[in-house]
Amino acid sequence: MSVYPNAAGTAAADAADPSLCAPLPVLGRDVTVPLVTGGEVTYAALDYAASAPALQRVWDDVAAYAPYYGSVHRGAGYLSQLSTDLFENSRAVVHGFLGCRDGDQVVFTRSTTDSLNLLAAALPAGCEVFVFETEHHASLLPWRNARVTYLDAPRTPGEAVRTLEHALAGRDPYGPALVCVTGASNVTGEVWPVRELAAAAHAHGARIVLDAAQLTPHHPLSVEELDVDWVAFSGHKLYAPFGSGVLAGRADWLREAEPYLAGGGASRTVARRADGGVEVEWHTTAARHEAGSPNVIGVYSIAAACKALTEAGFDRLVARERHLIAKVREGLAEVPEVRLLSLFGDDAPRVGVLSFVVDGWNSSHFAAALSAEYGIGVRDGLFCAHPLVRTLLGSDPQDVGECGAPEAGPGEKSLNAIRVSFGAGTPDEHVERFVRAVKELVRDGAQWKYRTEDGRCVPDRG
Amino acid sequence: MSVYPNAAGTAAADAADPSLCAPLPVLGRDVTVPLVTGGEVTYAALDYAASAPALQRVWDDVAAYAPYYGSVHRGAGYLSQLSTDLFENSRAVVHGFLGCRDGDQVVFTRSTTDSLNLLAAALPAGCEVFVFETEHHASLLPWRNARVTYLDAPRTPGEAVRTLEHALAGRDPYGPALVCVTGASNVTGEVWPVRELAAAAHAHGARIVLDAAQLTPHHPLSVEELDVDWVAFSGHKLYAPFGSGVLAGRADWLREAEPYLAGGGASRTVARRADGGVEVEWHTTAARHEAGSPNVIGVYSIAAACKALTEAGFDRLVARERHLIAKVREGLAEVPEVRLLSLFGDDAPRVGVLSFVVDGWNSSHFAAALSAEYGIGVRDGLFCAHPLVRTLLGSDPQDVGECGAPEAGPGEKSLNAIRVSFGAGTPDEHVERFVRAVKELVRDGAQWKYRTEDGRCVPDRG
Repeated sequence: MSVYPNAAGTAAADAADPSLCAPLPVLGRDVTVPLVTGGEVTYAALDYAASAPALQRVWDDVAAYAPYYGSVHRGAGYLSQLSTDLFENSRAVVHGFLGCRDGDQVVFTRSTTDSLNLLAAALPAGCEVFVFETEHHASLLPWRNARVTYLDAPRTPGEAVRTLEHALAGRDPYGPALVCVTGASNVTGEVWPVRELAAAAHAHGARIVLDAAQLTPHHPLSVEELDVDWVAFSGHKLYAPFGSGVLAGRADWLREAEPYLAGGGASRTVARRADGGVEVEWHTTAARHEAGSPNVIGVYSIAAACKALTEAGFDRLVARERHLIAKVREGLAEVPEVRLLSLFGDDAPRVGVLSFVVDGWNSSHFAAALSAEYGIGVRDGLFCAHPLVRTLLGSDPQDVGECGAPEAGPGEKSLNAIRVSFGAGTPDEHVERFVRAVKELVRDGAQWKYRTEDGRCVPDRG
Repeated sequence: MSVYPNAAGTAAADAADPSLCAPLPVLGRDVTVPLVTGGEVTYAALDYAASAPALQRVWDDVAAYAPYYGSVHRGAGYLSQLSTDLFENSRAVVHGFLGCRDGDQVVFTRSTTDSLNLLAAALPAGCEVFVFETEHHASLLPWRNARVTYLDAPRTPGEAVRTLEHALAGRDPYGPALVCVTGASNVTGEVWPVRELAAAAHAHGARIVLDAAQLTPHHPLSVEELDVDWVAFSGHKLYAPFGSGVLAGRADWLREAEPYLAGGGASRTVARRADGGVEVEWHTTAARHEAGSPNVIGVYSIAAACKALTEAGFDRLVARERHLIAKVREGLAEVPEVRLLSLFGDDAPRVGVLSFVVDGWNSSHFAAALSAEYGIGVRDGLFCAHPLVRTLLGSDPQDVGECGAPEAGPGEKSLNAIRVSFGAGTPDEHVERFVRAVKELVRDGAQWKYRTEDGRCVPDRG
């Protein structure tokens, strides 16, 4: 696969690699949490796919800047000028980090969801959208004002490309089209054949946006090399949890679209017309879609993360993550009751995101036990990717209630799953503890009982 | 005026008041900046109306929480549960701070602009919107999909109420209507008769949203007492610059509207339909409009600011701000070349936001000299309220180019203005230095020349 060519290495091979780097320092690495079984333990944050901890470097950069925070754009004071420069420089840093083309715009949003909603609002008239049903909701749902073709889950990367080509070729009318595809699944961690899908899209006169929410934290990418038209990602998964996200790519559709938000900053001039109405001239730069005071700290934190990952040696972090993935997979492979969820099979390249079910266990109870008895934070549920998870579980769409609500009792068919995910800040001990915990829980059972209360799974003292 | 009943006190009276509190500690209070005339000086941040510095207490709370940051909603780990509780508790804190009614929803957005765009997307069919032309762009422009009636600038609060009543009474058809009004002007600082406007709106079967971006940092308010239907504000003006904002108020329109963003978090269930489409059931709580991972730190920072202002004694901060306002007004009154911009006249209640022009000066050059020669950060331009500022300046709508671009040379008619604004963190010294600087610049002229370069006014070494 083009993005992540050699991701299926083994732990044994990597452990012997002297180039394996240490995890990057993150906030919370020393936080201890209480166990129901007594005592405290260092918290093992294994829910990076939802929100990763802040890199210490990101926090330090934000903390160093915070006293110099000022209004950006048009403030006359020294701190305003400094903040404006820092804000616009952050745009340039992100442009470089993503390997954007000259002329690509970097628009700051609040999240991947926001970025894709922005692009959805910028589609040209008559544009048809193609998405696989396997997308998470952020890329599945934003296309409300377009005709959307949902593509069935492919079982190989090659099938994904063929399915897309077939759908694009058969579109009627053969008008403007956009393909939205995830870079790495937030459920299986599997990497999608982005470059091949981009080539297919372009061969059929369509454009493509890459949802890189789960890819940017785990692997360098280049917009230019992948030849995608846009890329979207979130700061909070990229170790920069300060409320900002990015949409970067082709300027034309963005420049021609109505401003995403209407307000100051996006408007160049506003004047009352003779007829009583209001005449607005909008900016044509990224500012067009950034109305309102920008989130300077959020934007700067993303740039700080880009710099931190680059300077740490992103390739070394990738190698280290491969080593952790292999540790988890080899550990779980020794537990026959565990079934990993996979679309593309064992050999697919992947990032540090794995979902599974445990035979005989309610996934929510299992996740609660990992937390309460081992201090391990994972996620249970459907991961805001309901159709995909149901496909992987083989469950009926009508079986499942609210995202994350545990419905199945022990011994029943799993209606949701458990997800473990990690990244640049994860020490070996966390994944080792996780593997040990899974083995112990399956072998010995949980020490406490768990029950659902107000939609949350809690230890049951009764 | 109902919101701010006694705001026109004098400095002399307040200075004698032993209850006057100290400014609240803010980040950057010790930051020094270089002067073109040599040496360094403590930065005087007098652009609070654009973005206020973070309260030290807000920063400390965020810093204490940051290591415990985790994914909110449905994460099974200890930090996820803690973060979820903190996130939802922040909602309750904001609900209390705003004096909301039982049943009012608090929706977290990214800014006031975002909040009003959200409400604009939630208008019922056929809803007509009424806004005064004096609004800033965030409240003037979002109503793109509605019929909008722009109301002429009133010259007294009473005229504002009468103008609104007349317009609402005459609407045809007499269908659903929304009034959007600012609480305190971001140009003049003048407080609008919110309670009276709300009564007028309700008497005519309309609803009203209060743009409180410039009110919440300066004065306690109560949604219930003002009887407004919604209120919108930004964290970054409320000493919490971490990318979050608020829309709070009636749940009905919000519950019935299409989700603001489409994505995870807003969707309760998503399933593939037999016909190949996708069926979505959306949440009916605030989550409906909060798709994507929430900005937990931003939200928590707003709650921290609400608590800090309340615990410091908001009434004492109001008294202190009145004292600063009086100092500025009395100082500027001694400079005949200075003309304060005002819609409602000298006796109008106001917050710590004042705009002015200086006879014989280009406003941008004046603001640049305040920065370069005195270390004072103010703002120049049209303050994203073009129609209002042009009305106050008496300039022609065609006169002015880009927001903030200095077009008029010294001695020519001012095409933009200078704004000084302050708040809970402002020490007396900052406003005293400002008054002294204005007097010296007018009397002696600037020591350097200034010119515009790349849209920014800079000292001219030539």
